[in-house]
Amino acid sequence: MKISESIIAPKGFAATGAHVGIKKQKKDLSLILSKYPCEAAACYTTNTVKAAPVEWDMSITNSKKKVYGIVTNSGNANACTGPRGKDDTQKMAEAFAQSAGCAADEILVCSTGVIGVYMPTDIVTQGITQTFKNLGETENDFTLAAEAIMTTDTFMKTASAQISINGTEVNLLGMAKGSGMIHPNMATMLSYIITDCAITKTALDFAVKEAVNDTFNMITVDADTSTNDTLLVLANGAAGNECITGKNGAYEIFKEAIFEICKKLATDIAKDGEGATKLMEVTVLGALTLCDARKIAKSVASSNLFKAALFGADANWGRVLCAMGYSGGKFDPAKVDVTIENEKGSVKLCENGEPVQFSEEAATQVLSENKVCIQISLNQGNLSATAWGCDLTYDYVKINGDYRS
Amino acid sequence: MKISESIIAPKGFAATGAHVGIKKQKKDLSLILSKYPCEAAACYTTNTVKAAPVEWDMSITNSKKKVYGIVTNSGNANACTGPRGKDDTQKMAEAFAQSAGCAADEILVCSTGVIGVYMPTDIVTQGITQTFKNLGETENDFTLAAEAIMTTDTFMKTASAQISINGTEVNLLGMAKGSGMIHPNMATMLSYIITDCAITKTALDFAVKEAVNDTFNMITVDADTSTNDTLLVLANGAAGNECITGKNGAYEIFKEAIFEICKKLATDIAKDGEGATKLMEVTVLGALTLCDARKIAKSVASSNLFKAALFGADANWGRVLCAMGYSGGKFDPAKVDVTIENEKGSVKLCENGEPVQFSEEAATQVLSENKVCIQISLNQGNLSATAWGCDLTYDYVKINGDYRS
Repeated sequence: MKISESIIAPKGFAATGAHVGIKKQKKDLSLILSKYPCEAAACYTTNTVKAAPVEWDMSITNSKKKVYGIVTNSGNANACTGPRGKDDTQKMAEAFAQSAGCAADEILVCSTGVIGVYMPTDIVTQGITQTFKNLGETENDFTLAAEAIMTTDTFMKTASAQISINGTEVNLLGMAKGSGMIHPNMATMLSYIITDCAITKTALDFAVKEAVNDTFNMITVDADTSTNDTLLVLANGAAGNECITGKNGAYEIFKEAIFEICKKLATDIAKDGEGATKLMEVTVLGALTLCDARKIAKSVASSNLFKAALFGADANWGRVLCAMGYSGGKFDPAKVDVTIENEKGSVKLCENGEPVQFSEEAATQVLSENKVCIQISLNQGNLSATAWGCDLTYDYVKINGDYRS
Repeated sequence: MKISESIIAPKGFAATGAHVGIKKQKKDLSLILSKYPCEAAACYTTNTVKAAPVEWDMSITNSKKKVYGIVTNSGNANACTGPRGKDDTQKMAEAFAQSAGCAADEILVCSTGVIGVYMPTDIVTQGITQTFKNLGETENDFTLAAEAIMTTDTFMKTASAQISINGTEVNLLGMAKGSGMIHPNMATMLSYIITDCAITKTALDFAVKEAVNDTFNMITVDADTSTNDTLLVLANGAAGNECITGKNGAYEIFKEAIFEICKKLATDIAKDGEGATKLMEVTVLGALTLCDARKIAKSVASSNLFKAALFGADANWGRVLCAMGYSGGKFDPAKVDVTIENEKGSVKLCENGEPVQFSEEAATQVLSENKVCIQISLNQGNLSATAWGCDLTYDYVKINGDYRS
């Protein structure tokens, strides 16, 4: 499965992005529209405090309703805004629906930005009407849409895949934004995947659920699970393939494409964690259960102490064992091996839970790269999991010490 | 109950501290010895990866054995050191026991420092024998002992209390060290309380357990639960009071003293979190259950995003709501009020889960002090809990980016 960062738009979709005045200068409104009704699958934050647009979208995607588009604003999360927040979300949907000629509950809404500030509703709804005219199907149009959902992201996150379903070409395009409040069980992340694949809602729901567990739910930046996390997957059937209705060969191909796009977007989010200089990939091998492997991998990727050590390129493997120990995952400390590796080499730091002699110089070389893999062998069973995170840096503190201003 | 920072030694105890060569320059060995056998209660880390001394102490305090002393080294945690680590712990106990004329399993051992490095055993055991000669009962001797358990702590943490048990004066003295790897369910913290109170092991166990839940288990610096966390409470009976055997009035007085000392030491640890510039006190009121109140308070005190906002004196109350929402504690977001306060004033930031108008200037004034109270009213029930934490600063990253060197 080849995943590309370049934007290849699926058939029947248009997009655009613009600055309408929520943020001072940067683009803050993104529109995605399908000519045809789409099956929609989704995954949302588990936070008790859910932003108004999350509740709006949940009520739509939990039903069997088909949808036509997604409107997103950045710069304001529309969270902790009470009944007025709900109204504002509805107004955004209505404004987009009116221009598109569909019903408001056929439009999904996402918001990202500061929590606890009411939306500048008139600016946003007028902006939607204005921006609608610019919807287009070119690479540039989708780039505008992907840029407009960004907040503190330092680079745009997109992924495309082309697959063949029984001889018919099917396209998938993903886009995402990070980059703080990122923790397993969704994050302050918005991710959209649009595809021209013909697939039933049930099959789409399955594919998304399977993909999310090992991708978006395995990333962490700061252990803060946000109020707005949303993954939306829209399939409009414009490719004309034989509709995927169940778990057959075509489903497997489609699911792999969804998985790979999710993985690409999720690791991009981890890599672009606020202030991050390094992507950390933690792989746990030899676990007795998948649940243990996931808990342990996520715990290590989340440890502030190990994240700070990674920033300082310090091979402090004791912090890896410590984070494993409070993960809640089961393992025998006396059987654990820990190795760090990447293209600069592979250095074993710990064997059977005890120190081994290693070259500090070689370890520092590995830890100084912008991607570091931590391989943890539990040597107990045969299940494995991978989590992605980033280092904890001065810039994380700087960015988050003064976010609202 | 008056708690003092000054050191007033309970009867029958001696102490000392010295530099023996584990660290480069600072004191790294601490001895506490009782003339009389002590009842010992304790509380330990819940981390699966337990340091060798933790396992040694657990086997002693979980039995009905009486103990005579505590030997502590700083600079090396003796964690992830396998069978050799166990031997090293035993050798430390043996060295102290030999000088003291008791059995090795009547000596408790604690270690704190870097994980995954074997102990320099000869240096430590010779150091114990040498340092033993300096044991004394003055304020200065106990100061040396309290200083020698410190690692990255910036100030010494002690607390004393004098109480009257049926007319007899009873003394309690506590000492503790932080200051990274600090999270509810104990932390890289060592805390000792010694008292001349006469009390049964059963009553002592109860008092300690009750005190810990609302003190040491409610502090957090970085959500990293350490491998070495230990609280030891030794009671030698030298005060000559009528022995406390059950939950009577004398027990309540004693328990309150233990609680207040634990609270003082715990908040000192939070205040002295690595790199911290501010103590955060989070009080949750109006919860339906105590468990909900504790979960919510701890979650807010642990949030990297809110901790960074506190560092920046940014009244970003949305992050408070967000951290409450992923805490696992139950509440209705639409009923939540949030107020920040200290001697500079009181500013309500949020009412019924929605923004209220407030003076940014007044909020910044409150947030710029070195202690900030966050009061969260759930307005649902009548249970409450308080958690303590600190801000997340550049210095936390600096200290932990290069700890081993």
